[in-house]
Amino acid sequence: MRDIDEHNITRAVLARLAGCPDPRLREIMSALVRHAHDFVREVRLTEAEWEQGIAFLTATGQMCSGKRQEFILLSDTLGVSMLATALNNALPPGATEATVFGPFHTGDAPPAASGSDIARGAPGDPLFAQIEIVDLQGSPVIDAQVDIWQADAQGLYDVQQPALGEERRARALMRSDAQGRLRFRSVMATPYPVPTDGPVGAMLLATGRHPWRPAHVHFLIRAPGFHPLTTHLFRDADPYLDSDVVFGVRSSLIGDFVRHDGGTAPDGSRVDGPYYVLHHRFVLAPSGAAVAASA
Amino acid sequence: MRDIDEHNITRAVLARLAGCPDPRLREIMSALVRHAHDFVREVRLTEAEWEQGIAFLTATGQMCSGKRQEFILLSDTLGVSMLATALNNALPPGATEATVFGPFHTGDAPPAASGSDIARGAPGDPLFAQIEIVDLQGSPVIDAQVDIWQADAQGLYDVQQPALGEERRARALMRSDAQGRLRFRSVMATPYPVPTDGPVGAMLLATGRHPWRPAHVHFLIRAPGFHPLTTHLFRDADPYLDSDVVFGVRSSLIGDFVRHDGGTAPDGSRVDGPYYVLHHRFVLAPSGAAVAASA
Repeated sequence: MRDIDEHNITRAVLARLAGCPDPRLREIMSALVRHAHDFVREVRLTEAEWEQGIAFLTATGQMCSGKRQEFILLSDTLGVSMLATALNNALPPGATEATVFGPFHTGDAPPAASGSDIARGAPGDPLFAQIEIVDLQGSPVIDAQVDIWQADAQGLYDVQQPALGEERRARALMRSDAQGRLRFRSVMATPYPVPTDGPVGAMLLATGRHPWRPAHVHFLIRAPGFHPLTTHLFRDADPYLDSDVVFGVRSSLIGDFVRHDGGTAPDGSRVDGPYYVLHHRFVLAPSGAAVAASA
Repeated sequence: MRDIDEHNITRAVLARLAGCPDPRLREIMSALVRHAHDFVREVRLTEAEWEQGIAFLTATGQMCSGKRQEFILLSDTLGVSMLATALNNALPPGATEATVFGPFHTGDAPPAASGSDIARGAPGDPLFAQIEIVDLQGSPVIDAQVDIWQADAQGLYDVQQPALGEERRARALMRSDAQGRLRFRSVMATPYPVPTDGPVGAMLLATGRHPWRPAHVHFLIRAPGFHPLTTHLFRDADPYLDSDVVFGVRSSLIGDFVRHDGGTAPDGSRVDGPYYVLHHRFVLAPSGAAVAASA
């Protein structure tokens, strides 16, 4: 094809993809090309805007490191992550809903026994959580692997604090017991802004958007025979529940965080200042349930 | 908005962009979100595929340096660059057509007087070019700035050869004379594969596409009062004219490269092996012509 113009180029690129040996890759790349071209044609992207786009994507990639994932943040703030989450987690009624994974999960959360203080020095009001994991029939899910991570009272994850080095705080890998339960002590999460010192922060500023997320604790729960659950628990009356910068809020994920003014905590310890107690039951769907629901 | 699902999320993100103070940015970001979401919904992107996409974009950004622009290469190989070029360079009949800019332009091409050997040691059969730059009426465009860059006989640009350091070869910044003309000696361009050692190369391999571009010389011609012209000259009978990996070929850009078997070259020098002579006339459109044509 020698005479490419704005009208025939999409056809030319799709023809070039016709030989892709993997049918799923061909489907994805072809759709990507069609939608990308439609976008460029619709807005009649100028060459200066194209250059800005290239510079933005380049800077986004170069901001990524082992401890920071600016492309996940971009996907999150444009609602792409939550859309993919929703598409892949259309679960049966009664199952706990999923939400975004976010950019702050690490593969090295320290294993912790039930009852542990997983804050490990992270600042904040104490939080005492009692978690139960059940299946759709209400039976306990035993020995589920529960990955927990959250920000502290300053709104920071451990990996955002260079002074901590490899020290892990407010992050743990736990397991449910024979009753499907686990307990931990941590700190109360607070609302926080996503990192604004990179390209995504510049995009939020330029588009007049605030960078805040409502307070939440992340959970990733996996057990053989069950659909993996990536979710959060939010706190009622949070000022950002209706404007989460990453579009992750679902009403069903507002947890029952109860504030106490000090006294004897659920683990028997004495707490002088305020503390919080959370009871929550997660309901796992069986493996394959999400596929069936989305078909 | 607290109950985000795959159906209402696009509306939620667009609502968030409604406060963008720059109307053009609002238009572009809103269209980007709509098309990106439509893509994800259409292919029902899985979470594993989303992760692969994030990893691909991250690797693409991290492959970029002062001497390599992998995101431009991605845009080029998906036809996005040529689409933007076509949209922004719909010129009046008779004007030389534009094509892609490519990832190998540098801002530091050495200035060269007409008649110079701009190859400066780059290997290849000698090329003697005689260029004329005129307006739509055929009058010479005097003192136009002409940026020229190309690959050598090994298919490599200077910036792809670490051994050259900051040395610039087969690259120059020239000016047209009082007759709108300039002459240079360089080397004959050859077909070459785009760099395949990065994410874009992996994408081409996975999709069953070859990485080749037909032989070409790049020109970027600027003169006050004229629409800037970013283009190439290709060579007739090149095996890749119909399958350029970046979709940049236009029939009108096939230049008249004439092969000679050795003898006295146009600059009076004696050449023992084969050499090539190119005569070409570039026709510039007035400033504003492209805007009028695309409206």
